[in-house]
Amino acid sequence: MPLGERTGDKSESRYCGVEIDFSDDMPRVLDFNLYSAGFDFVLAPLMDPSYRPSLVQKDSFGSGALPFAGSDLVLSPSQWSSHVVGKISSWIDLDSEDETIRIDSETTLKQEIAWASHLSLQACLLPTPKGTSCANYARCVNQILQGLNNMQLWLRIPLVKPDDDSMDAKAVTSGDSWETWNSFRLLCEHNSQLSVALDIMSTLPSANSIGRWFGESVRAAIVNTDCFLTNSRGNPSLCKRHQRLITGFFNHSIQIIISGKSVHPKASLDANASQDSIVADSQRHPLRPYLDYVGHLYQRMDPLPEQERFELGYRDFLQSPLQPLMDNLEAQTYETFEKDAVKYIQYQRAVSKALLDRVSDEEATAKAVVLMVVGAGRGPLVRASLQAAEETGRKLRVYAVEKNPNAVVTLHALIKLEGWEDTVTIVSSDMRHWNAPEKADVLVSELLGSFGDNELSPECLDGAQRFLKEDGISIPSSYTSFLQPVTASKLYNDVKAHKDLVHFETAYVVKIHNVARLAPCQSVFSFTHPKKSDKESNQRYKKLQFIIPNDTGSAMVHGFAGYFDATLYKDVHLGIEPSTATPNMFSWFAIFFPLRTPICVNPGSTLEVHFWRCCGSTKVWYEWCVASPSPSPIHNSNGRSYWVGL
Amino acid sequence: MPLGERTGDKSESRYCGVEIDFSDDMPRVLDFNLYSAGFDFVLAPLMDPSYRPSLVQKDSFGSGALPFAGSDLVLSPSQWSSHVVGKISSWIDLDSEDETIRIDSETTLKQEIAWASHLSLQACLLPTPKGTSCANYARCVNQILQGLNNMQLWLRIPLVKPDDDSMDAKAVTSGDSWETWNSFRLLCEHNSQLSVALDIMSTLPSANSIGRWFGESVRAAIVNTDCFLTNSRGNPSLCKRHQRLITGFFNHSIQIIISGKSVHPKASLDANASQDSIVADSQRHPLRPYLDYVGHLYQRMDPLPEQERFELGYRDFLQSPLQPLMDNLEAQTYETFEKDAVKYIQYQRAVSKALLDRVSDEEATAKAVVLMVVGAGRGPLVRASLQAAEETGRKLRVYAVEKNPNAVVTLHALIKLEGWEDTVTIVSSDMRHWNAPEKADVLVSELLGSFGDNELSPECLDGAQRFLKEDGISIPSSYTSFLQPVTASKLYNDVKAHKDLVHFETAYVVKIHNVARLAPCQSVFSFTHPKKSDKESNQRYKKLQFIIPNDTGSAMVHGFAGYFDATLYKDVHLGIEPSTATPNMFSWFAIFFPLRTPICVNPGSTLEVHFWRCCGSTKVWYEWCVASPSPSPIHNSNGRSYWVGL
Repeated sequence: MPLGERTGDKSESRYCGVEIDFSDDMPRVLDFNLYSAGFDFVLAPLMDPSYRPSLVQKDSFGSGALPFAGSDLVLSPSQWSSHVVGKISSWIDLDSEDETIRIDSETTLKQEIAWASHLSLQACLLPTPKGTSCANYARCVNQILQGLNNMQLWLRIPLVKPDDDSMDAKAVTSGDSWETWNSFRLLCEHNSQLSVALDIMSTLPSANSIGRWFGESVRAAIVNTDCFLTNSRGNPSLCKRHQRLITGFFNHSIQIIISGKSVHPKASLDANASQDSIVADSQRHPLRPYLDYVGHLYQRMDPLPEQERFELGYRDFLQSPLQPLMDNLEAQTYETFEKDAVKYIQYQRAVSKALLDRVSDEEATAKAVVLMVVGAGRGPLVRASLQAAEETGRKLRVYAVEKNPNAVVTLHALIKLEGWEDTVTIVSSDMRHWNAPEKADVLVSELLGSFGDNELSPECLDGAQRFLKEDGISIPSSYTSFLQPVTASKLYNDVKAHKDLVHFETAYVVKIHNVARLAPCQSVFSFTHPKKSDKESNQRYKKLQFIIPNDTGSAMVHGFAGYFDATLYKDVHLGIEPSTATPNMFSWFAIFFPLRTPICVNPGSTLEVHFWRCCGSTKVWYEWCVASPSPSPIHNSNGRSYWVGL
Repeated sequence: MPLGERTGDKSESRYCGVEIDFSDDMPRVLDFNLYSAGFDFVLAPLMDPSYRPSLVQKDSFGSGALPFAGSDLVLSPSQWSSHVVGKISSWIDLDSEDETIRIDSETTLKQEIAWASHLSLQACLLPTPKGTSCANYARCVNQILQGLNNMQLWLRIPLVKPDDDSMDAKAVTSGDSWETWNSFRLLCEHNSQLSVALDIMSTLPSANSIGRWFGESVRAAIVNTDCFLTNSRGNPSLCKRHQRLITGFFNHSIQIIISGKSVHPKASLDANASQDSIVADSQRHPLRPYLDYVGHLYQRMDPLPEQERFELGYRDFLQSPLQPLMDNLEAQTYETFEKDAVKYIQYQRAVSKALLDRVSDEEATAKAVVLMVVGAGRGPLVRASLQAAEETGRKLRVYAVEKNPNAVVTLHALIKLEGWEDTVTIVSSDMRHWNAPEKADVLVSELLGSFGDNELSPECLDGAQRFLKEDGISIPSSYTSFLQPVTASKLYNDVKAHKDLVHFETAYVVKIHNVARLAPCQSVFSFTHPKKSDKESNQRYKKLQFIIPNDTGSAMVHGFAGYFDATLYKDVHLGIEPSTATPNMFSWFAIFFPLRTPICVNPGSTLEVHFWRCCGSTKVWYEWCVASPSPSPIHNSNGRSYWVGL
């Protein structure tokens, strides 16, 4: 039964499993662990652990039946597939020096996977690679993956990394189990059916080191009873760091599996005595107290905020960025964005401050400020501006310039409804071509994309600046894009699934969730309005150098998460750069720039990245590359894959 | 006029160029350098070196004509394209800290390339990147390459690498100009129109370090007059190392370009006085003595051996390996292989030794040896065996087993023609299925591919071993494959041109020439015949560790060159492994296993490679991967791309 209910959260991490020993009586196994004890699934060996193909062949192989854990008929198909994760024989060692062991291991692995496929299990757990080398194991698993249907293979990896701060890079990395995973998955070419089950130990590595795993494809965390402390009542509990880790797993859809022997026998007895006296001691599941504790951690989590719940379905889902200049937005899109109250409050604050600066209290009744909303859409910025005028007691003459004729229809209706006819003039035109009847004191626009300039705000405002007074004010007055390198295995695999170059050279809007942020953000491109000079180009070039913290260990960079921050006016800003993000604003997700080939970075090393903003006569595009530690191809040359139309 | 004639050699390296200063009188330039002095082409600046776009725009840009070296009409189209290599302005610096220089550089570069394309020049020389970073330069060149038709871009790279033997890897690599090239071409994604022009200095790096360049796409070597010494007669000459280098360039189709000022004025005068007194001193080309010396080096080269001349057309040309088991060979193929006298002499020697061991002199007249040629083809091994019998005075009973019915026709004719009817029995059958009427003393076969077992000799001989006596002899008695990592830019680009996975996971037979061998060969798979036990598998797995010499510097591994060596009988061997190759044998070229992504290896580092020979019920295939320094995907999983049919 699930650990608990969390409104809106349908993640897999509600289900908790238990690792068990080999048994050929699977119905009893399910009775005991699931129906009595309350676990949701078992991690169960599929084959008698004493089986070795090379020994069998010396005897007569009479019946021809392999020593599996019961026939397929002992459970129903849905029991097999929902309640059993297959545990591949842990003795197998495909990289043994001993050829017999190697060949026995390969034979057994293939037999067990074939059996698990026959049973339609959802996943099998592959034992941890035993030595430093795993190439033959990976070769065999890779062969299996080529022909596998839906089953997931979870490679068991202990969560260990020596926290050696010495500068000897070899010593630091040699004991890092992430390296084993990384080799294995590179050899298997990032296969999306290959993922990780982390073995949690009583000692945890550094937070940065653990953080890497949240960008990897981790499906399960196997928590050994050794990890648990004993609380004052003799019950198992976890220390704060372990608690935070488990909560992190819940938040990243990683399932918990309890493993090991009960080391809290008193707890079992207590629980038994107090709660469930009907069940005899001998039948009481020894790991039930651990399950109860994990359930307690689950139920103790804060409920998801409404906005987060709304955005759950967008997590790590790649969307193509809008092209609001080339395409006209749809009503639904306006509807969504207009709901973002926080954004319009910031605009209203910025306009208020600008009006107060522009018109002194003495002039307030006499002087009307000419304010133009360029890209007025269905009117939210017109409303915010009028509210600012009311708030500050300033007079406005507003022009609402909008190129989308469909939005203009709504604008007309709005103005009539609100009785703004005397104040607001609607202009159905592209701001780049409109001949304004007078010049503006204040230009208000919201043309920003997730990466700031990526919806061509600079080019549009270049056009609008023609009708801004010399000393006029642009709101926003500037904006800057930001980038940081991320591990984002899921995003990478989704891009790769398209099997073409175009998708690897496209930036995506995405609510990033299962990612590891490998270094703090750095600023990329800045634009200031109004421009000092007409000749100032909108092309940009920036070299960025990110330093990977020493205690992270090596990590994989699948691409870059991008954000923006905009200064609307003076101290009023608005943005999504994580360290300064405007709270509760939901109009923008991050942007993701993928790398065609993920790049492995070492602890303490510098990741040098180059980004270009290029402008042609009909389009604007980005190019990007990694220059160090090893150069990547230049992505999106000439905007061949991804561009924004002018 | 070409440097000389070398029979059969039509390589580009016959042509020698000269680097000149900017001139707007191109007809005079050609008169002076080509028609008078004898150079074949000029490396000439296309644009006035004082031009800077940012300065022009401040003046009025009245005429609109850029300061190019003459209009397209001053030379004929064929003069422009055959006699002029464009030299891009050497002041450009796209990675300057100064934005004006950066933008001027990009503008000029694009203008000059556009002009060169307009003139249909065959190549342009790009100046050496100025700093340690070249990302913006590469980005711009990469943009140009996307739209370039046939023109080659030669990146000028000085041939320098500090010979620092310290273990400080950074110090060793920082001054290595190969690193600059490597970054640039990685950023430009191995574009095949981007190649190298090496600037030769008076000091040369180590031989291993120079060797790398012969696997790269080097089109020209610019030899400065500074490199030349003065011989006893006051003429320019080169030291031995430089001479060998120039000869190496000739052998690898790399054109020489003479550059710099004459530092041997006496030589010019002498030459003038003695040979060509009509030409006035002032008209005599100051670099003519250098051209004469280079011509002398060219003419002094040994003529190409006949076999090399025959194989010129096969150099670095990828061929799919034969599938002689699945497909029947054609007459032409038999014809070619049968011409390889050396091979059959080795077989005859091996059979002779085996016959002498098998039958003592006393038994020679009484005892007939049963010798079976399995895979007899059109009979060359039958002939070699009979000659061995004659030579040793032993009696033979020969069975010639051949599965190709077309070859059997020829076999019958041969036996009739030679009168071998009493000795030789022809068997039209696949050796794996033939029921032999008696058992053989000696089994003779030649089923070897370039990689030894890759034409399935092991599987065929498994079948034939049924009719070999317990103490019988197999010729060959064993064979071993060998591998070494290579830089092979041309092969890589040819594989890549197919734009699919299949070609990257296929092994090719190829006469490798423009490659750099980065480490000595290591043995891979060995097979011994007859097998000790029926159960012995033909699957193989080998882990190889190649160490890159410290003085090589970093290098790019595009794949692996493979060879074989076979022991026919006792000390009689036959093979193509370079260090022990059988001289003058031409039946086998090397085999080439590509890597999907070339891997950069550092000096002194270990390149760990895994190779598998996998056997299925209908096919045999190889899988391979790099495990270190960074894991590659496993190539050809399950033989999905490349396999040999059983």
